[in-house]
Amino acid sequence: MDAYARDQTYAVPGAPLAVVLARDLGDVVAAMEWAHVHRVPVVPRGGGSGLAGGATAVDGCLVLSLARMTAIREIAPRDHLAVVEPGVITADLDRAAREHGLMYAPDPSSHEISTIGGNLATNAGGLRCVKYGVTRDSALGLEVVLADGRVIRTGGRTVKGVTGYDLTGLFVGSEGTLGVITAATVRLRPAPAEPPVTVLATFGTLAAAGEAAAAIMGDGLRPSLLELVDRATLRAIDEWRRIDLDPDTAAVIIAQTDGPDCPARELVRRCTDAGAGFAAASTDAAEAAALLDLRRLAYPAAERLGNCLVEDVCVPRSRLPEMIRRIEDVADRRGVRILTVAHAGDGNLHPLFVFDRGLAEPPPHVQAAADEVFTAAIELGGTLTGEHGVGVLKRPWLDAALGAGTRAVHRQIKQALDPSGLMNPGKAI
Amino acid sequence: MDAYARDQTYAVPGAPLAVVLARDLGDVVAAMEWAHVHRVPVVPRGGGSGLAGGATAVDGCLVLSLARMTAIREIAPRDHLAVVEPGVITADLDRAAREHGLMYAPDPSSHEISTIGGNLATNAGGLRCVKYGVTRDSALGLEVVLADGRVIRTGGRTVKGVTGYDLTGLFVGSEGTLGVITAATVRLRPAPAEPPVTVLATFGTLAAAGEAAAAIMGDGLRPSLLELVDRATLRAIDEWRRIDLDPDTAAVIIAQTDGPDCPARELVRRCTDAGAGFAAASTDAAEAAALLDLRRLAYPAAERLGNCLVEDVCVPRSRLPEMIRRIEDVADRRGVRILTVAHAGDGNLHPLFVFDRGLAEPPPHVQAAADEVFTAAIELGGTLTGEHGVGVLKRPWLDAALGAGTRAVHRQIKQALDPSGLMNPGKAI
Ligand SMILES: Cc1cc2nc3c(=O)[nH]c(=O)nc-3n(C[C@H](O)[C@H](O)[C@H](O)COP(=O)(O)OP(=O)(O)OC[C@H]3O[C@@H](n4cnc5c(N)ncnc54)[C@H](O)[C@@H]3O)c2cc1C
Ligand SMILES: Cc1cc2nc3c(=O)[nH]c(=O)nc-3n(C[C@H](O)[C@H](O)[C@H](O)COP(=O)(O)OP(=O)(O)OC[C@H]3O[C@@H](n4cnc5c(N)ncnc54)[C@H](O)[C@@H]3O)c2cc1C
Repeated sequence: MDAYARDQTYAVPGAPLAVVLARDLGDVVAAMEWAHVHRVPVVPRGGGSGLAGGATAVDGCLVLSLARMTAIREIAPRDHLAVVEPGVITADLDRAAREHGLMYAPDPSSHEISTIGGNLATNAGGLRCVKYGVTRDSALGLEVVLADGRVIRTGGRTVKGVTGYDLTGLFVGSEGTLGVITAATVRLRPAPAEPPVTVLATFGTLAAAGEAAAAIMGDGLRPSLLELVDRATLRAIDEWRRIDLDPDTAAVIIAQTDGPDCPARELVRRCTDAGAGFAAASTDAAEAAALLDLRRLAYPAAERLGNCLVEDVCVPRSRLPEMIRRIEDVADRRGVRILTVAHAGDGNLHPLFVFDRGLAEPPPHVQAAADEVFTAAIELGGTLTGEHGVGVLKRPWLDAALGAGTRAVHRQIKQALDPSGLMNPGKAI
Repeated sequence: MDAYARDQTYAVPGAPLAVVLARDLGDVVAAMEWAHVHRVPVVPRGGGSGLAGGATAVDGCLVLSLARMTAIREIAPRDHLAVVEPGVITADLDRAAREHGLMYAPDPSSHEISTIGGNLATNAGGLRCVKYGVTRDSALGLEVVLADGRVIRTGGRTVKGVTGYDLTGLFVGSEGTLGVITAATVRLRPAPAEPPVTVLATFGTLAAAGEAAAAIMGDGLRPSLLELVDRATLRAIDEWRRIDLDPDTAAVIIAQTDGPDCPARELVRRCTDAGAGFAAASTDAAEAAALLDLRRLAYPAAERLGNCLVEDVCVPRSRLPEMIRRIEDVADRRGVRILTVAHAGDGNLHPLFVFDRGLAEPPPHVQAAADEVFTAAIELGGTLTGEHGVGVLKRPWLDAALGAGTRAVHRQIKQALDPSGLMNPGKAI
């Protein structure tokens, strides 16, 4: 049971009563009805790849794993949709869609290990969401088992519809606290005709990199990826892989385009105009992979240095440089190594806080540094979590982020749908 | 008070107790607190342009008009957002955004008379939403006064964020039954650099027109408008304006493109490949306006013939031709003149049921025809209303559209946020 009690964080799990490996809707209903009658808390679980402690077991709970419900029930190419079970691995759905010239757009970096159910429950983002939106933007309809075992359906197969409240949107991002997602109708999109073109640009100041990202988004270009890697991350990668880093580089921007709505030369021009030291586009697949590695190696480069607390703040796009400056300042003052990569087009930053490998959880000075980063994000008009969710780890900051009145409304909705408080208690809200 | 008791439908209003013309948040809070203490129902109201009876007064209610709260408080060009009061006229916000090279995308045809608050409360669509999404896709955050006068804030200024439930999405489309929207942070988008290019294509069969629309959307082209006008509508326009209609024309498609993601020649090619008798693009503004008139004249052409019941079903995109065929069949069998225009790219159809000008509301055989159209939409995997809302007029079909279990969840949420049932009673759910 231990393997089903944790996610990818240091959050300490409770001891589950049992793990249910559901194979179909009937199994889920049976488990929920039983749990309801016996007042046993239920922790839904997909791939367990979460970064917020959302799928962490609580004492005496049923862990309800949806990971074996892996059928892609339907792909409707003309309507650009798929009907899937919740345990389908994200990348598997994308691969299945590609056979029809379509794609499933949301691509969290965990896409080979996360499930569609988990993506929906956390409203996962990813690299492509700067162009194609987050998981909620691809959710058309759901089948949900409620806390008492009732089964409901939300949304449908149409791209528009205002019949009733947006229950689909409400269950998406609710982190298993309102119901168990047992099937989903999701939107597919035409796959781009050409492979993407990759652009790399280096900047001597954060402000210039921020300016380039703002110019790209401001002019209505639609990059399919727009990432920023900060100086601390570049240094950590350079120490490890010797990438010939110019010590004056404050940040790099890596962008991709997959269509005529975003010519690569326009991306390069925006970077050059903003003062990039170097900016060029590549259509060579091997070269593109090497450039993307600068982004992909951020996590492993951080993990080489120690254990990591992965954070996920989001600020209005224009505040990105200021937010990175504040993170750098916190790192200096607190003596914490923080590597930051950002989905620059969305203002979503992932500061990685490195701490001693011997420790099971972040020590107090790292927690304090994270606390200052959250506070800074909220001060800049931003929020605690852009895509990973609140889980258990971010609950202490909810009052600061939402305000007491809005939190109370969360509790009223939770109370309405799960009056006994059995669905993933202690998470998300 | 009578002028504030009705919307644009034949729904018969009750007699309001009073009309409150709120000027600021304080007025709204005072009204809501008073109504709460005295158990008086409240009907929020924007421009009164609704087509579902949502803003229709109920007996003894306060009509709470937000129409005088018209400040555009902020336009933040770098963050592509605006903060507005609910009474701002939709087109005014768009015009204000254009001064910054931006636009407010949602454009219901009522945009000169509808308000942002009403658009949010109904999750309004429009012509551009085939490319830019519906009102919900432009809603970042809200200020809402709850039934008891409490003020909460949802969402924020970031394009991503998963801190807590998606309350913004829940209030959007709730038709004033969960709270009063008193301010909104909405997304703006870069305005297209060039004026749009307009394409017109005529088809001898509905199937061919449907095929053209499917090919356009299926190939990932992103038209900024994609409308279908059916034979009955074309005839009514021809009778009135003498447009030299070829009697063999079963439907026309009118499309626009505003960017390089959708070359006009590709639109023309898809139409020709699908069998269009005529298909051509025009960049001439006067000619474009004349082509768009075919769409714009649909309502007046119907109103020339009598009173109109305006409907709003939505089906999966591929079912559009089949849905129009079913509407034609209903029209024949029931002897009702039905003119249909459709947002073809979204599968959203507006059948206009013409009835005798002497009648205050649709006679039984027209109601029966509408009933069959709703049933057909649901049978084809579609829904009752794509963008106008449920209001009072579509409530009888909610069980068929949503199912009893899903309706029960609606009531649970309503009960949680408005336990006394004072917010726009008898509407939407
Ligand atoms: C290397 C790595 C990279 C990552 N990159 C990204 C990224 O780019 N973007 C991003 O957004 N996230 C990322 N994540 C975080 C994580 O992968 C996502 O949150 C993902 O959506 C979780 O999916 P899962 O199936 O693993 O869910 P789990 O971790 O099993 O569960 C996550 C939450 O969802 C709930 N849940 C799961 N399934 C269901 C269901 N069927 N019904 C109801 N509730 C359910 C759980 O109770 C829990 O609260 C990354 C994680 C790792 C380890
Ligand atoms: C000629 C014409 C063309 C139209 N074209 C379209 C179209 O293309 N697309 C489309 O979607 N609709 C269209 N409509 C319908 C209508 O314009 C939309 O529903 C619009 O969003 C209503 O806005 P309003 O401000 O007039 O709201 P109202 O009619 O005043 O109210 C509509 C609903 O919203 C609620 N409401 C209003 N303001 C608030 C608030 N501040 N807080 C909470 N609840 C509130 C009301 O209680 C009611 O339930 C059209 C209508 C007409 C007459």
